[in-house]
Amino acid sequence: MAAEMAEQPAVLRRILQEGAPEIRRIAQEIAARKPRFVQLTARGTSDNAALYAKYLLEIQLGLPAGLASMSTVTAYGARQDLTDCLVVTVSQSGGSPDLVASTKAAREAGAITLAVTNNAASPLAEVSEFHIDVLAGPEKALPATKTYTAELLALYLFVEGLRGGDAAAAEKLPELAEGVLARGAEVKELAQRYRFAERLVLTSRGYGYPTAKEAALKLMETSYIPALSFSGADLLHGPLAMVDNVSPVIAIVTEGRGGEALQPVLDRLRGRGADLVVIGSEAQVAQASAGFALPGGLAEEVQPILEILPLQMLAYEVTIARGQDPDAPRALAKVTETH
Amino acid sequence: MAAEMAEQPAVLRRILQEGAPEIRRIAQEIAARKPRFVQLTARGTSDNAALYAKYLLEIQLGLPAGLASMSTVTAYGARQDLTDCLVVTVSQSGGSPDLVASTKAAREAGAITLAVTNNAASPLAEVSEFHIDVLAGPEKALPATKTYTAELLALYLFVEGLRGGDAAAAEKLPELAEGVLARGAEVKELAQRYRFAERLVLTSRGYGYPTAKEAALKLMETSYIPALSFSGADLLHGPLAMVDNVSPVIAIVTEGRGGEALQPVLDRLRGRGADLVVIGSEAQVAQASAGFALPGGLAEEVQPILEILPLQMLAYEVTIARGQDPDAPRALAKVTETH
Repeated sequence: MAAEMAEQPAVLRRILQEGAPEIRRIAQEIAARKPRFVQLTARGTSDNAALYAKYLLEIQLGLPAGLASMSTVTAYGARQDLTDCLVVTVSQSGGSPDLVASTKAAREAGAITLAVTNNAASPLAEVSEFHIDVLAGPEKALPATKTYTAELLALYLFVEGLRGGDAAAAEKLPELAEGVLARGAEVKELAQRYRFAERLVLTSRGYGYPTAKEAALKLMETSYIPALSFSGADLLHGPLAMVDNVSPVIAIVTEGRGGEALQPVLDRLRGRGADLVVIGSEAQVAQASAGFALPGGLAEEVQPILEILPLQMLAYEVTIARGQDPDAPRALAKVTETH
Repeated sequence: MAAEMAEQPAVLRRILQEGAPEIRRIAQEIAARKPRFVQLTARGTSDNAALYAKYLLEIQLGLPAGLASMSTVTAYGARQDLTDCLVVTVSQSGGSPDLVASTKAAREAGAITLAVTNNAASPLAEVSEFHIDVLAGPEKALPATKTYTAELLALYLFVEGLRGGDAAAAEKLPELAEGVLARGAEVKELAQRYRFAERLVLTSRGYGYPTAKEAALKLMETSYIPALSFSGADLLHGPLAMVDNVSPVIAIVTEGRGGEALQPVLDRLRGRGADLVVIGSEAQVAQASAGFALPGGLAEEVQPILEILPLQMLAYEVTIARGQDPDAPRALAKVTETH
């Protein structure tokens, strides 16, 4: 897991240099078909990448997008009319039978189908009309790390291609990722805080919300700490009751409108005496109990590619601090055979 | 909270007798406009009702549907083209500013807008082209119970109206709900199990998945136990690592295809020694550590209206067993002012 996390700057560089032209070509071909609605299909870590794509599509393109409930097709045999619909299926392995079946059904129902995977020879790439290879190289650790950031960047470039953007905001990511990954000592220190934590709450809003969900998943997979993730607005609609001065909260405060919309939530949390750790700008970290400061000045829509890195590292370090092995989480298989 | 839970059979009866004709009329008018996509907008408990509607729309009508990420409009100002799109906003109070703002924006973007609320005089009902009143009567307890089942039934009748169905599957619900609510002693007994629980995992698949999410929310709001909900398939993609023989699991096993699709997950959980409590058929309960048996023979698509009842009662009883007050959860307000 540590080795694969460390590969991320190189993977991001590879996508920008080798993958981008083909992603742009596919995006232009799909844009010419004028999809009116996007359905995103994925599970686990890739589902969080799909949620990031949903924000990009809705904010950058004004294209309504939804996450698919796969069982409607695979368990109930629903037959949808997907004319004018783009179905994007995101999967590291491209091998999960339900993803393959639902993508096949979507194509038969008239959808434009695009698979985003780390395996060009996978069954999912095979059944989809279009395929984007995220070029992350073989991922052997059970907790997915480099394939997540690779999926995010590939999806960002795809949406930039759809809208005819120049993707300039992504250029500095490899270098910035190197800078963040070099700060392992800071994360190790932060991990001590959760040595005996019995629960964690993660929250964010807008572009940062997929990061909160992915960080919660990573923490659960590796450290087994129950980690609940909520959009800041949903946290106020109920689960806030659960947060008190023994419930640690990690907030991902994206620099931009998402972070601004999160401020009232942070104020409520501070008012309740919550232990609040912030992943965000230096100014935001300074107002929190502790945190990890990210470099500023990056466009909000690409910040998720950077802000997950300290949280992957945190999941790894918390797991080691608790005497467990992040490379051998119990009960997981790399290709999950759900139907 | 107890009084409002007890009102549910009467509320269901009122919707079937007094509300159904108007719901059918609205559905027919909307069906004539031939929406091609549906966007569902809600927060908290109503978001779980919206998810139920998503399953109904996709399975019963083959209409692709997605849950809205409200911040794309309210925080980022995204301007979507929603021609041919039906936007359904579900809210008990009809008063949350972000729901009102996003519904207003959807109407301006060309969508057919429908509000489903418990307050015909609310700002949300005002800005929507159509409005369905769920007729639950004033809800004073902070944890929503009767408005949830009322929303479910109203949404079921709406989808039946869209597809020209006769809604016969719902007829027995008021009587069956009375039968379930009369079994408080059984639930009180079951609640002892969670007297000292530090976490809970809830899982289901298909139509039962919104029930798992709503039960988790109810437990968190009242008892403050961190309750994580996963679709059975997603549970296998990672979080299963967190479940061991001290992690209680509650599975909602809907009788039908959703329950069948959940069987491999239940087998894996039993294999890991999980404490498995089942809400489902007598046969399913018999194979579990404990459970609450629901009456059989009900169409799968209306079972969620019944299966949440023992879980609402469980949240109430667990809260009392832990010495807390379900009528005064800390930190909650009845109308949540998110923006």
